[in-house]
Amino acid sequence: MGVTDRHDAEALDAGDPLARFRDDFVVADEPRIYLDGNSLGRLPRRTAARLAAGVEEWSTRLVQAWDDWIELPVLVGDRLAAACLGARPGEVLVADSTTVNLFKLAHAALDLRPAGPVVTDLASFPTDRYVLEGIARARGRDLVLADTPDAALDVAGAALVCLSHVDYRSGRLLDLAAITASTESMVLWDLSHSIGAVPIDLSAADLAVGCTYKYLNAGPGAPAFLYVRRELQAQLRSPIQGWFGQREQFAMGPGYEPADGIERFHAGTPPVLGILAVDAGVELVTEAGIDRIAAKGEKLTDLIIGLHDAWLGKLGFELATPRSARERGSHVALRHPDAWPIARALIERAGVIPDFRPPDLVRLGVPALYTRFVDVWDAMRRLRDLVASGEHRTVNAAARRVT
Amino acid sequence: MGVTDRHDAEALDAGDPLARFRDDFVVADEPRIYLDGNSLGRLPRRTAARLAAGVEEWSTRLVQAWDDWIELPVLVGDRLAAACLGARPGEVLVADSTTVNLFKLAHAALDLRPAGPVVTDLASFPTDRYVLEGIARARGRDLVLADTPDAALDVAGAALVCLSHVDYRSGRLLDLAAITASTESMVLWDLSHSIGAVPIDLSAADLAVGCTYKYLNAGPGAPAFLYVRRELQAQLRSPIQGWFGQREQFAMGPGYEPADGIERFHAGTPPVLGILAVDAGVELVTEAGIDRIAAKGEKLTDLIIGLHDAWLGKLGFELATPRSARERGSHVALRHPDAWPIARALIERAGVIPDFRPPDLVRLGVPALYTRFVDVWDAMRRLRDLVASGEHRTVNAAARRVT
Repeated sequence: MGVTDRHDAEALDAGDPLARFRDDFVVADEPRIYLDGNSLGRLPRRTAARLAAGVEEWSTRLVQAWDDWIELPVLVGDRLAAACLGARPGEVLVADSTTVNLFKLAHAALDLRPAGPVVTDLASFPTDRYVLEGIARARGRDLVLADTPDAALDVAGAALVCLSHVDYRSGRLLDLAAITASTESMVLWDLSHSIGAVPIDLSAADLAVGCTYKYLNAGPGAPAFLYVRRELQAQLRSPIQGWFGQREQFAMGPGYEPADGIERFHAGTPPVLGILAVDAGVELVTEAGIDRIAAKGEKLTDLIIGLHDAWLGKLGFELATPRSARERGSHVALRHPDAWPIARALIERAGVIPDFRPPDLVRLGVPALYTRFVDVWDAMRRLRDLVASGEHRTVNAAARRVT
Repeated sequence: MGVTDRHDAEALDAGDPLARFRDDFVVADEPRIYLDGNSLGRLPRRTAARLAAGVEEWSTRLVQAWDDWIELPVLVGDRLAAACLGARPGEVLVADSTTVNLFKLAHAALDLRPAGPVVTDLASFPTDRYVLEGIARARGRDLVLADTPDAALDVAGAALVCLSHVDYRSGRLLDLAAITASTESMVLWDLSHSIGAVPIDLSAADLAVGCTYKYLNAGPGAPAFLYVRRELQAQLRSPIQGWFGQREQFAMGPGYEPADGIERFHAGTPPVLGILAVDAGVELVTEAGIDRIAAKGEKLTDLIIGLHDAWLGKLGFELATPRSARERGSHVALRHPDAWPIARALIERAGVIPDFRPPDLVRLGVPALYTRFVDVWDAMRRLRDLVASGEHRTVNAAARRVT
């Protein structure tokens, strides 16, 4: 056997300690192979039940259910912290979108650093760069868009450095703990592409945000989370002074005084049903164990890379993801000049759902909780055959694209 | 018959053209009487089905469902505009929370008015006052907290005036169209307590926000909406430059350029399931007709006021809501020095769910889609009997309170 032998993939599935978790998800799209769970994760079976229970509670307890619901953003944040963030209770809040949370924390951080540029790098997810550009302009700071994370960390006198833990294109994974230990800069981490895929150690980190609809499988547009190190919380104020961040919320007094803990980073009324879906997703990560998830993710991406080397190099592909497993998350990017028509053809002709990232990347996400090794093997074979036959040149590449 | 005769209430129900809409809601809490739908509306039966369909779509179409979902925030915004806002297509967006939307629009408005204070009045909902306080500080403006809306509109040189269309405490309804026509100030309306209860004419208004979990029945923490007059959109920029507000979102280019239309006020990824629930709620308002809803709301609040006058004046109550139907929304506030223990006792002893607003208001909300005249009558009788007997003095008034 070898990487190009399907039996090899079957054997990996047979020995996979997480194999049973696939049954925790609704898989209604076979024989399609879904490799875009890093854009939108699958529906966990328990989530439908959890949402139905939340809806039932709404209908029966009505406004009185808020006595319990009001605890959810911190409760689920604590569970998320314990499952895969290496953070302490009271340091994580489930709220708003990643974009809004990044806005809140970046603004707050600049209050502490009255001078210096806002720094990020070209690998930051677009919304991060856009948000920071707006904040820098509003606060009269320069925005430095460094070429690499290393270069971003080298910018002297930076007020704030914003880094993506896993690069949404290449899949490159930064050593968050080592960077945290070695830098003087205040770093705001975007964990959207690593949360639920690899263990994260925020124990010494200052600020982080991330999304829950990828590897946490909380559904389209599910609420995001934010993390603020306990020792920093009292020094930071959200620019969005909403009533859920107010100390005595229901006194409804005239002036704003931020709550003591992580709740001060709330804005408006939290989305209860969305948070219940986050809770269900976090529960699955807890049950599977983030270390086992990461170990399987490493093998899945290893398989992609092995098959790339065996089959795709001669078809014009180039690996855009680090070969060292310690330097990548749970997705792999393949560079090809025809990446866009290839991605379309995979969907339309080959029943494989990848993602495309401009200008030239086909991105394959392999969330460990439900992706099988044979899925990867079959998808790579279909990709090889598609490009070898030139069929991708016949698709309508003008089709609309949406993540 | 007369207002104090229950047959009078029964006759009103018998002649109610909206009576059948009660069956469109899950009413699982009888014999309790729910008069807090203006905090959290009931669950429409169709919403459970709509959410289930959204979950099903997530599980089967996965990321490809975004081809349709991406239209939802504007599509449902347009439906909301047509149902009860008097706004044109492309002027309303369903997104984020009321707090975040208010933050976005108030910030954007100040870009157009480089000098002058931010003005609101003491009747503004707390989150509005808190948000504006934060914005004023950040932008180096004064915040003027006027005593009344009229006084707020009289502040010379105001950069922005923020008003609540219906006062969350007293229920006082402002004449939005008349104020819009007569003021030079840029007004940002908070419609949270009027949307879905009374017709709103935004045709000449500049800016508005509002919530969907009260009279639109979209569920706890459901996404909010924002309105920007078409002619103003190109001049305003959201301070939160998120990727869903970007012109060519999936080009993922380096710099931010806001989208042309109302989409520029998006921030992060929209909450799909939440927006589907908003759509279901809007549909019910459309079917019932906002004018019929408002007409019934007027009769329901008339009945509360009539029974207050007949029964409650001698028990220490005072009406805190305008007597003129044209000057109030769909809730009534009763002032009493023991308002807090009375509200607790109504819940614990009388099976009536009101709301309490500090320091001294018992608030009764009567959403017309599902509130019966006999509900009002029975609740008022229980309230009378409770206070007449002094039973409210025996409850544990220290109990936690949450909206």
